[in-house]
Amino acid sequence: MTTNFDFYFDFSSPYAYLASTQIEALAAEFGRQVNWHPILLGPMFKTMGSAPLTEIPLKGSYALHDFKRSATLNGIPYVHPQVFPISTVSAARAVLYVQHTQPEKVAVFAKRLFQAYFAENQAINETDIVLALAAEVGLDAVKLADGMVSETIKNQLKQTVTDAMQRGVFGAPFIFIDNEPFWGFDRFDQIRKWLAIQTQ
Amino acid sequence: MTTNFDFYFDFSSPYAYLASTQIEALAAEFGRQVNWHPILLGPMFKTMGSAPLTEIPLKGSYALHDFKRSATLNGIPYVHPQVFPISTVSAARAVLYVQHTQPEKVAVFAKRLFQAYFAENQAINETDIVLALAAEVGLDAVKLADGMVSETIKNQLKQTVTDAMQRGVFGAPFIFIDNEPFWGFDRFDQIRKWLAIQTQ
Repeated sequence: MTTNFDFYFDFSSPYAYLASTQIEALAAEFGRQVNWHPILLGPMFKTMGSAPLTEIPLKGSYALHDFKRSATLNGIPYVHPQVFPISTVSAARAVLYVQHTQPEKVAVFAKRLFQAYFAENQAINETDIVLALAAEVGLDAVKLADGMVSETIKNQLKQTVTDAMQRGVFGAPFIFIDNEPFWGFDRFDQIRKWLAIQTQ
Repeated sequence: MTTNFDFYFDFSSPYAYLASTQIEALAAEFGRQVNWHPILLGPMFKTMGSAPLTEIPLKGSYALHDFKRSATLNGIPYVHPQVFPISTVSAARAVLYVQHTQPEKVAVFAKRLFQAYFAENQAINETDIVLALAAEVGLDAVKLADGMVSETIKNQLKQTVTDAMQRGVFGAPFIFIDNEPFWGFDRFDQIRKWLAIQTQ
């Protein structure tokens, strides 16, 4: 029996955005589906003594160049957001709420949020924008506005981040396939090779 | 007119080792050759507030797993060294000296050093080992022993690292192709795509 891909992402990660556009097709190549796990990188960077890529001396300017080049060479639209990085707590909570109420909408909603931020320069740190995008994909924005700030959802996001770190997640995108860990959009070819061997 | 690949590496970088086994073939696909630039990552990590991969919380254990997996999936021998990371000052100086005296031997010598460390568990931080490997590839170990510790070579290594950082190098392997920067063994496919577009 095959398991789903466990796909961990922060909505502020350019490489997670790139991954979000191709992860379902990659999973489908091997007869798999995707579990979408919104996380927050902040606590992970703190544990590692790290920081958002673009804020690291030397590495920062390369990263900006590589985001765009990686998108272009893969035919993915990319406009580096005017405000970067942003808080993604609202977006992550919204996705967790939808996982409880309309799980079949999670993928389309998460992809819409990513696209809004990385291709349309929309400020998805703002709850109003998150709700508007939710409505766009057919979700009930009124119920979502209440539900996403419930104590249950707030605690669930914290727990998701803690659990992810315990599992070994330290960046985004991070993908587990049958508990094998893969970090980065640039591991997609390796995932393909690895799965091809498993299924031989 | 096409230029050579500028290949920057630290002999202590597993991904640079993996790259060293394929960089000449990759360059040759596009009618190019490789300039080998030994550098030291220490001063770069200091500037970035970073550390060797395996010493970073969370990221460290993933990195150890990914070194081996990346090697296996690419059919490259890999035995993680018992002592890691190591000082690579001697190995880097030796390569710089050979660049002056027998430039046609640089590639074979650099590859032999990498292989000794990452496939045969040889302590290439020790000058005696570096000299033995030099002799193995047909270099004059006696002349090398003197030459590699000359003030000229010592200063040249410092200057190479300074120049590399000014050019934007912050990790290894780091490759410039017509001044386009690529960081990581996992950028080889991207290099292929990028060069295919340039040569259209």
